[in-house]
Amino acid sequence: MIHPSTRTLVSELPSHVGRTVTVNGWVRTSRLQRTMQFVLLRDHTGTVQLTHRRDGSAIEAALEGAAVESAVRVTGTVVANPAVKLGGLELLPESVEVLAPAAGPLPVDEQSGPEHRQDWRFLDLRRRPAAGLALTVASTLEQGLREYALAQGCTELHTPKLMATASESGAEVFKLDYFGGAAYLAQSPQFYKQTAIAAGIDRVFEVGPVFRAEPSYTSRHATEFTGVDVELGWTAGVEEVQAFEEGMIAHALALVAERHGARIREEFGVEVTVPATPFPRITMADAQQRLRAAGWDPEGEKTDLDPAGERLLAELVGEETGHEFVFVTHYPSEIRPFYHARPAGRPDLTLSFDLLWRGLEVTTGAQREHRHEVLAEQAVEKGMALESLADYLNNFRYGCPPHGGFGMGLNRMLMVLLGLASIRDAVFLFRGPNRLTP
Amino acid sequence: MIHPSTRTLVSELPSHVGRTVTVNGWVRTSRLQRTMQFVLLRDHTGTVQLTHRRDGSAIEAALEGAAVESAVRVTGTVVANPAVKLGGLELLPESVEVLAPAAGPLPVDEQSGPEHRQDWRFLDLRRRPAAGLALTVASTLEQGLREYALAQGCTELHTPKLMATASESGAEVFKLDYFGGAAYLAQSPQFYKQTAIAAGIDRVFEVGPVFRAEPSYTSRHATEFTGVDVELGWTAGVEEVQAFEEGMIAHALALVAERHGARIREEFGVEVTVPATPFPRITMADAQQRLRAAGWDPEGEKTDLDPAGERLLAELVGEETGHEFVFVTHYPSEIRPFYHARPAGRPDLTLSFDLLWRGLEVTTGAQREHRHEVLAEQAVEKGMALESLADYLNNFRYGCPPHGGFGMGLNRMLMVLLGLASIRDAVFLFRGPNRLTP
Repeated sequence: MIHPSTRTLVSELPSHVGRTVTVNGWVRTSRLQRTMQFVLLRDHTGTVQLTHRRDGSAIEAALEGAAVESAVRVTGTVVANPAVKLGGLELLPESVEVLAPAAGPLPVDEQSGPEHRQDWRFLDLRRRPAAGLALTVASTLEQGLREYALAQGCTELHTPKLMATASESGAEVFKLDYFGGAAYLAQSPQFYKQTAIAAGIDRVFEVGPVFRAEPSYTSRHATEFTGVDVELGWTAGVEEVQAFEEGMIAHALALVAERHGARIREEFGVEVTVPATPFPRITMADAQQRLRAAGWDPEGEKTDLDPAGERLLAELVGEETGHEFVFVTHYPSEIRPFYHARPAGRPDLTLSFDLLWRGLEVTTGAQREHRHEVLAEQAVEKGMALESLADYLNNFRYGCPPHGGFGMGLNRMLMVLLGLASIRDAVFLFRGPNRLTP
Repeated sequence: MIHPSTRTLVSELPSHVGRTVTVNGWVRTSRLQRTMQFVLLRDHTGTVQLTHRRDGSAIEAALEGAAVESAVRVTGTVVANPAVKLGGLELLPESVEVLAPAAGPLPVDEQSGPEHRQDWRFLDLRRRPAAGLALTVASTLEQGLREYALAQGCTELHTPKLMATASESGAEVFKLDYFGGAAYLAQSPQFYKQTAIAAGIDRVFEVGPVFRAEPSYTSRHATEFTGVDVELGWTAGVEEVQAFEEGMIAHALALVAERHGARIREEFGVEVTVPATPFPRITMADAQQRLRAAGWDPEGEKTDLDPAGERLLAELVGEETGHEFVFVTHYPSEIRPFYHARPAGRPDLTLSFDLLWRGLEVTTGAQREHRHEVLAEQAVEKGMALESLADYLNNFRYGCPPHGGFGMGLNRMLMVLLGLASIRDAVFLFRGPNRLTP
């Protein structure tokens, strides 16, 4: 790793006992006694105790003046001291430089409410180890998903977020001024990743922002989050898409478990396990039958699963299989978009799936309808205006192969993985109908 | 790789001679003679010849009816035939299925103008090998940059694209309706990645869309492109940022050369070489002196380098060092944003740099000013309204360590790498003031 030549990380100190090193970090706590000064210094790898006997020096003055959360650079000798709790080590400073003092008192602490924490998100992230760990895990989770996709022949793409039409569903997209006209923010890369398949890119993978203009105030919704999208060309059927997804998730969770399993256990009390493949599968019809037998939807009115149904289904499947994941397949056409393919002779059903993890929906996927005429018919049936779909439908006029794919919410995956109560804790800086800052 | 159990890629055929395989692909050309049918079938890995003697069968009818660019699935025997140009192999079909017929004639060809090609981008990408290769190379380039950043301890982050204020420069950002109020699209993750440093994330890396509302119609500008951003905490100086960047670029170009060097040579006539590190460095003052000595800016009016100056500088440095890259450093404060740090005692200069590659600017970077009071002063000096910067400035109140970073345009890097005439060829689907489709 490139570090300033002088920098030693706290985690590296055990191999530097007896030597002089320079450590950068934040003042976590200060215990300033009559003859001794004890300061805990934290970097992103751990915490070390600075021990200094008062001597009227510049060191004493610097330690005295460095408020909690000040950024300091300390050069000193690493000394083994079994009496010190933090790894039996302490650092005896030979010079202390306050690089950036903290103004006191701090505006946020462990007792602060969630909105106030969001206002001071950077300090909350820096001070709460669990908060920072969530972002580290998100980075690894993404890396694991990407590794798998690239190894399976996907090309990583960036599709436009600026669109000319609010094609999928006008009500839920943001509109913006575009050089005197209008543009819309993409609520998913769906159409564009299908364009990539039509463009002869065999398999596509994208990680990027998706925008939802829904005025939803639940703990699971955000107006901007990170979508992970995959589309596979020449698929023989939707099962191939599901097999890809379960392999991708298992690979990513294995990487997370290996790198962060111990710390996740410590901070979140959660055991990261690598799910066995294949995941359990159940058709929507079977799922509803089993749910109703267990008392769900006594009025018999629902065509889709509600959150309570998803949780109950996860319980039922979990009891039977011991598995935390379940693919719900064959959703009714009525509640799926026009571009989902339908089984031959069953126009009422789609070759689609949702993936539930611990009872929360983390993915929607499907085999797509690639036949131009059938696709146009299904769009009309859903009341779509074909003019606004013209560019999209063009993709299917010149030999667009069969294909299928899925979209996954990275932040929602993280939420389920770590057992977070709110998606606010699963994004770096949350965006919702009432929040555009910091 | 997971493929439908029956799928064989064209590139895999040499190891299947004598066997029966199934190949998926598009009809590239058809030569239908009186007794023989020759069809070239192309997938993303290569092209194979189908050879069929007319026999009145369904195979004959399928081959006869499959227009150019139809997507077909062929099962047949792989036969070695030295007379066949394409690798001395042919496929004798035993069944042919037209999965998706192409409507003819095709709306775009090699003679089409650039705007028309953009209209039919998916077909242009599928039919022009160079066009498709550019996107493959982009994916690998990104992968190489990311590998390096992750290996150097960066956390990959996704910062918000929706912002409450048009903070950096109001004139160039897109404005959108946000639940009855206004929001703006981020023109760079600059402020947010600095927030990440203040949040205690040691090093940050982001790849994501950036939006520029500039009505620029040059071959180098787009309203949406992919930014690669890095920010490093606790930097000892801007040199550390430059060292990181040159290491990252060298690593990524080595990966591109290894995977695609031969095909890039073939399609673009370009040799991908791995640049030696460190890259040459020259201060802005020295650069201007040398440029003026070579006849640039005879009026002596320019404070910044214009495109002609950048090209000439690249020539001069190239002649002297043989290097394609050059860091131009110490830009005047006058033409740099308020948050660039300045050398002690030289308020007229910044600790910043641009990176030129073959005479084109591909990066801007700097050590940041991390001291709250100095930063606020510099903002006032630039005429910024401190109220609109309140959230940003808060990051520097509680011990924000020294840090620095850079932003790189992925598409512009690709443009220079492959010698593309326009950024339109370096993005999947181009967005400009006059283009929001397809």
